[in-house]
Amino acid sequence: MSFKKKALKSIRAEIITIGDELLIGQVIDTNSAWIGKQLSQVGIQVHQITSVSDEIGHMLDALVNALTRADMVLVTGGLGPTKDDKTKEMLCAFFGTSLEFSPEAYLDVESYFKKRGREVSDLNRRQAEVPGGCTVLSNKVGTAPGMWFEHQGKIIVSMPGVPHEMKFLMENEVIGRLKSHFHTPFILHRTLLTHGIGESVLAEKLEEFESKLPLGFQLAYLPSPGLVKLRLSATGEEAQVRVGMEELETRLTELVKDYLFGYDDDDIQSVLGRRLKALGWTISTAESCTGGTIGHLITSVPGSSAWYAGSTITYSYESKTRLLGVPADLIQKHGAVSEEVVLSMARNVREKLGTHCAVATSGVAGPGGGTPEKPVGTVWIGVALPDRIFARKLQLGDNRLITIRVASESALHFLRKALD
Amino acid sequence: MSFKKKALKSIRAEIITIGDELLIGQVIDTNSAWIGKQLSQVGIQVHQITSVSDEIGHMLDALVNALTRADMVLVTGGLGPTKDDKTKEMLCAFFGTSLEFSPEAYLDVESYFKKRGREVSDLNRRQAEVPGGCTVLSNKVGTAPGMWFEHQGKIIVSMPGVPHEMKFLMENEVIGRLKSHFHTPFILHRTLLTHGIGESVLAEKLEEFESKLPLGFQLAYLPSPGLVKLRLSATGEEAQVRVGMEELETRLTELVKDYLFGYDDDDIQSVLGRRLKALGWTISTAESCTGGTIGHLITSVPGSSAWYAGSTITYSYESKTRLLGVPADLIQKHGAVSEEVVLSMARNVREKLGTHCAVATSGVAGPGGGTPEKPVGTVWIGVALPDRIFARKLQLGDNRLITIRVASESALHFLRKALD
Repeated sequence: MSFKKKALKSIRAEIITIGDELLIGQVIDTNSAWIGKQLSQVGIQVHQITSVSDEIGHMLDALVNALTRADMVLVTGGLGPTKDDKTKEMLCAFFGTSLEFSPEAYLDVESYFKKRGREVSDLNRRQAEVPGGCTVLSNKVGTAPGMWFEHQGKIIVSMPGVPHEMKFLMENEVIGRLKSHFHTPFILHRTLLTHGIGESVLAEKLEEFESKLPLGFQLAYLPSPGLVKLRLSATGEEAQVRVGMEELETRLTELVKDYLFGYDDDDIQSVLGRRLKALGWTISTAESCTGGTIGHLITSVPGSSAWYAGSTITYSYESKTRLLGVPADLIQKHGAVSEEVVLSMARNVREKLGTHCAVATSGVAGPGGGTPEKPVGTVWIGVALPDRIFARKLQLGDNRLITIRVASESALHFLRKALD
Repeated sequence: MSFKKKALKSIRAEIITIGDELLIGQVIDTNSAWIGKQLSQVGIQVHQITSVSDEIGHMLDALVNALTRADMVLVTGGLGPTKDDKTKEMLCAFFGTSLEFSPEAYLDVESYFKKRGREVSDLNRRQAEVPGGCTVLSNKVGTAPGMWFEHQGKIIVSMPGVPHEMKFLMENEVIGRLKSHFHTPFILHRTLLTHGIGESVLAEKLEEFESKLPLGFQLAYLPSPGLVKLRLSATGEEAQVRVGMEELETRLTELVKDYLFGYDDDDIQSVLGRRLKALGWTISTAESCTGGTIGHLITSVPGSSAWYAGSTITYSYESKTRLLGVPADLIQKHGAVSEEVVLSMARNVREKLGTHCAVATSGVAGPGGGTPEKPVGTVWIGVALPDRIFARKLQLGDNRLITIRVASESALHFLRKALD
């Protein structure tokens, strides 16, 4: 039964990221974490991540070493059209082949430039050259094709380092091929997203649940500013895992229901969007300290134009009055960062844009602008509904970007809760 | 003259980051990039970054391998008080020593808990145990001491993986020691940021420049959506490198001056902000398809309230009329995604908010909403100045988020160019 043994043995992957820019800290390697997440979801374990320079000998060493430890190696980077991109040269050296023009890859290159109304230069034509013997992975969002090699029972994949190109290739070309090539064990993940409760309080609440998890099941806490994700993972025989997961999910949902706002890849903007669409409602926003970030989050959701009317960003005192009609004396009396002003902002934008509901923010994102009564991190959030209006105050920290982000998401959370 | 030889040889470092959370993508490794930047600034070159699991054998392998290539190895992570933290055990195995209680390290542990009004638990007391023969590096912001080892002429440093603890140790304990231990060569980087020209066209333009780079100088192309960074790197004798770099920078600046918008860590929003501040000007924005992202970018700059008045986000047809007074029949006649409408938006928001200049966007971010005449990715950008107003059309791709981002940055780029 060597087949079954193979099926149960965990598949080891290694990632090699190429580029001097990673080593001198000009670029943070976000690709590896993303790849690690995707692979672990299909039961492939990342054993090591290695970042190396653009030097051929160094890349080659890393690849040879990785292959002694792993069943597959994913290489990102070094596929641009310029001289400092040497991954293809390295792969040719490794396989003892040379570059061949791929008509298949050229179709993608050509259509990429056509779409942008540009000619394919000689330099870019060379993007369609690949080491002999590789399978071309079609890149529809860039000019460097992905490459798939089978070598002594192991797999080597080369992808561009540009994150959205790498992601396109992983999602459309690589993951499926890996699943069918390896007999990956069955792994199931389910993530519950909570807002408004800290990790340690949550952990106390779930202590009993966690201690009674059946064999093969795990619970992980993944905190980030403004939310805690609870990830249930299970591995084992598929039917059994599915039944067990459903039961655990139901129990966990019940335990955290006051804080739960979504599952898996949800985010607050898409959850809220679905809710508004179901109600047939529209929303408008009035942002001060968040400076457009709520609009940015909402409009990152495809199709949000169906439920989002628009916003005012009123960064100056004057603009609050000019764009939104917040009375100047109200600002004078209570300050721009106040319950009164944020309520006025929410009420006025809702009326002005004729939407069913609205949220508004006003706060001190910092680093400047804090006072003893309203220190950096103070944010007022207003929510207007057809039948009521309310405001809440947050006291966030002194990291400007985190304050802006958490305040923006909190505004959407408060509205979503209010629609329950 | 072996001394001089040593001084000119570049010192090689490797970084090993430890932790399963890095491999399954739960945590993005931001430490390595930060360390890489710090080291390259003192002339130490990071040769490789390796992320490994919490398993002792695996860490040990990585350390042994790194020492075959590098003069020093910086290890982060695996120093917490819990069972899954095994870096100290691994170091004991490597050096053939055992853990010893360090009164010096304990002082830091004790004072850490005292400050927080807590007792030192047994578990935490063990944080002060270090492998025999190491130099303790004082950690004032956490409970795990840093450790410094000298081994066969090479340096091994172990630090916690928590970013602010690692940074504290690097800045206060590690960098200074490294500089005095090694005769570090001098390394200089200079990055030129360009917009509005593709990597391959740029590469053709710079072919001669590149081929004539003096010994010790390198040029790298770092493309990302909407911009290409050009990084000049040089190593050698300091005075010589500085002179050479200045000369090359001047020549490169001249060659790309039509596209250059900044240097090093600049981004378009801060470059534009500095320019506006210098002029004493203010800006307003009117966003349709970018949905708040321009505001989000601008307000990510600390102090932007000095030059940013605010915005309207007019996602619906109606809101363009209600908030901005864009004539309904203009939208009817030309469509919301048109030169006429985007000009009207820019003109009106500038007047409404009384700013010196304004930018406006209207486009089809997709995935829906495209037509044969205005396919997904079509974006109109309007720029209003005191004495003139103009619009430009972009044809971007079909990735919604990238289109939003590139359109937002392009609006800021067009305005910046117009201020030249």
